[in-house]
Amino acid sequence: MGIRIGILGYGNLGRGVECAVRQNEDMELVAVFTRRDPDTVSILTDTAKVCDIADAAAWKDRIDVMILCGGSATDLPVQTPEYVKYFNVIDSFDTHAKIPEHFAKVDAAARDAGHIGIISVGWDPGMFSLNRLYANAILPEGKDYTFWGKGVSQGHSDAIRRIAGVKNAKQYTIPVEAALEAARSGDNPELTTRQKHTRECFVVLEEGADAAKVEREIQTMPNYFADYDTTVHFISEEELLADHSGIPHGGFVLRSGVTGWEKEHKHLIEYRLKLDSNPEFTASVLTAYARAAHRLAQEGQSGCKTVFDIAPACLSARSAEELRASML
Amino acid sequence: MGIRIGILGYGNLGRGVECAVRQNEDMELVAVFTRRDPDTVSILTDTAKVCDIADAAAWKDRIDVMILCGGSATDLPVQTPEYVKYFNVIDSFDTHAKIPEHFAKVDAAARDAGHIGIISVGWDPGMFSLNRLYANAILPEGKDYTFWGKGVSQGHSDAIRRIAGVKNAKQYTIPVEAALEAARSGDNPELTTRQKHTRECFVVLEEGADAAKVEREIQTMPNYFADYDTTVHFISEEELLADHSGIPHGGFVLRSGVTGWEKEHKHLIEYRLKLDSNPEFTASVLTAYARAAHRLAQEGQSGCKTVFDIAPACLSARSAEELRASML
Repeated sequence: MGIRIGILGYGNLGRGVECAVRQNEDMELVAVFTRRDPDTVSILTDTAKVCDIADAAAWKDRIDVMILCGGSATDLPVQTPEYVKYFNVIDSFDTHAKIPEHFAKVDAAARDAGHIGIISVGWDPGMFSLNRLYANAILPEGKDYTFWGKGVSQGHSDAIRRIAGVKNAKQYTIPVEAALEAARSGDNPELTTRQKHTRECFVVLEEGADAAKVEREIQTMPNYFADYDTTVHFISEEELLADHSGIPHGGFVLRSGVTGWEKEHKHLIEYRLKLDSNPEFTASVLTAYARAAHRLAQEGQSGCKTVFDIAPACLSARSAEELRASML
Repeated sequence: MGIRIGILGYGNLGRGVECAVRQNEDMELVAVFTRRDPDTVSILTDTAKVCDIADAAAWKDRIDVMILCGGSATDLPVQTPEYVKYFNVIDSFDTHAKIPEHFAKVDAAARDAGHIGIISVGWDPGMFSLNRLYANAILPEGKDYTFWGKGVSQGHSDAIRRIAGVKNAKQYTIPVEAALEAARSGDNPELTTRQKHTRECFVVLEEGADAAKVEREIQTMPNYFADYDTTVHFISEEELLADHSGIPHGGFVLRSGVTGWEKEHKHLIEYRLKLDSNPEFTASVLTAYARAAHRLAQEGQSGCKTVFDIAPACLSARSAEELRASML
């Protein structure tokens, strides 16, 4: 029998985890837990059950790792410290500023229960964080750059949808090619927010709405758009569904640094992701770290961990010998 | 006092480690060990000693980590199992096919002595290996591509220099842009050796040598050049020194994979290095892993490790709390 996986929360991310588990032969999906009426939720995996989230704790001896697929705003701050009492858990908590606080709560609960909780798993935080850490450790003197996109920002799309007169909207964050090239140049330029990214919005108006007013409201919205060059396109609902229903994303992490006695040599480390589906890729990272959680728990470890604390070999289904022979 | 570092072998790589240690405030270079007469070797660090390699063992209580800077062909297979008896050691053993054998020898000696030996540290093996592992764990269904260059291959340059009539030579390995683009496309093409890289040679002839014969010998040389499109330029010794005395290198590791219930979404993970100085960058990686070796030894661990076994946080001078707050 493989590693027994549970999914808590069945939106885009939960479905992504379901798909990822099927791609990993050493895992099996046991149950999906939902706040909705389980009878109304149909999943893809014949052999797994759909259960009420209220019954999750009763599954504590039948699930090796519970992958928490809720949101960072209100779900995970409560769910991760709660469910780590019963399970080894993985979450994708991505509110960067609140990670220390979240870590402390999950760590206390995980140690009490003797479980592992791995938080902030995904690509940013997650794989991008790992690349920042490795690159900084290797090149202590240098400069970091992170670019996001081209991809859909859910938060920015939601912000547009809250404007009066807007029926629907999708927002793409786009890295500026010239800024990327400047970061790659080795000259370590200071790049402003406006220089690094542009924002492109596809907006469906309500009947009779004032397009010029909506455009102005978007482009001047503090925090979200005011600091960027923002383009707004008004399109029909049909066009939005046909051309903008995907959830692509990605980005770049670069570190440009120097070595040598006189700092005479330049080096560039660049990590890039180009993702057709942001939630499915995030889910694939969560699933790999579920394997690590299971292994650490089997070794008798407990407490809260992040991607920084996990040896890479723990993520792979292959043995240490196989990895050394095939991938080193 | 910082982590006390020793360097064994003072060629390009050893000098690179000396420079890297200076960039890490929690480390200090204590001594450099050489097979040459120590009186003839001058180093850059005023506060470190130059010693005869025969006296190395006597330093066992004064050095926390010895960084072995010899070659993989004949030095490291002997030196790493030998010096791990006295020190925690790091090496850059890069004969991929012999890693399992090297690991076994170093592991036995390290366990006996209660020391840590981290082998095959650098960028390939090393950072490229890590990226292969992470990308494979995240995207179990996909295809890997590794491209090297543009950079100087020491082995290929040496092979040219062994040809009769050749006075000096430098060889660049160059990735083919069209092949890189094909790998990035998501179509998972099969790429032949000839499609992936070209080779460019800058050759200084001995007086009276037959250029056409030398060119033919290079281009038809089995293993080294016969499977590649190879360009040969004949230049003067002055031009070689002026334009080709650097040791740049780098490359790309890509994994292209699919997710989704019907494998309907494509993803690309790309890691790229662009290095002005191959030995100095390798040295910087070795130095970061020296910190990890010191920490693991302080925790009471012993045995042989590779980059796959080391949690990323171990490489950084910053605390776990700082890392979570600043880089996650």
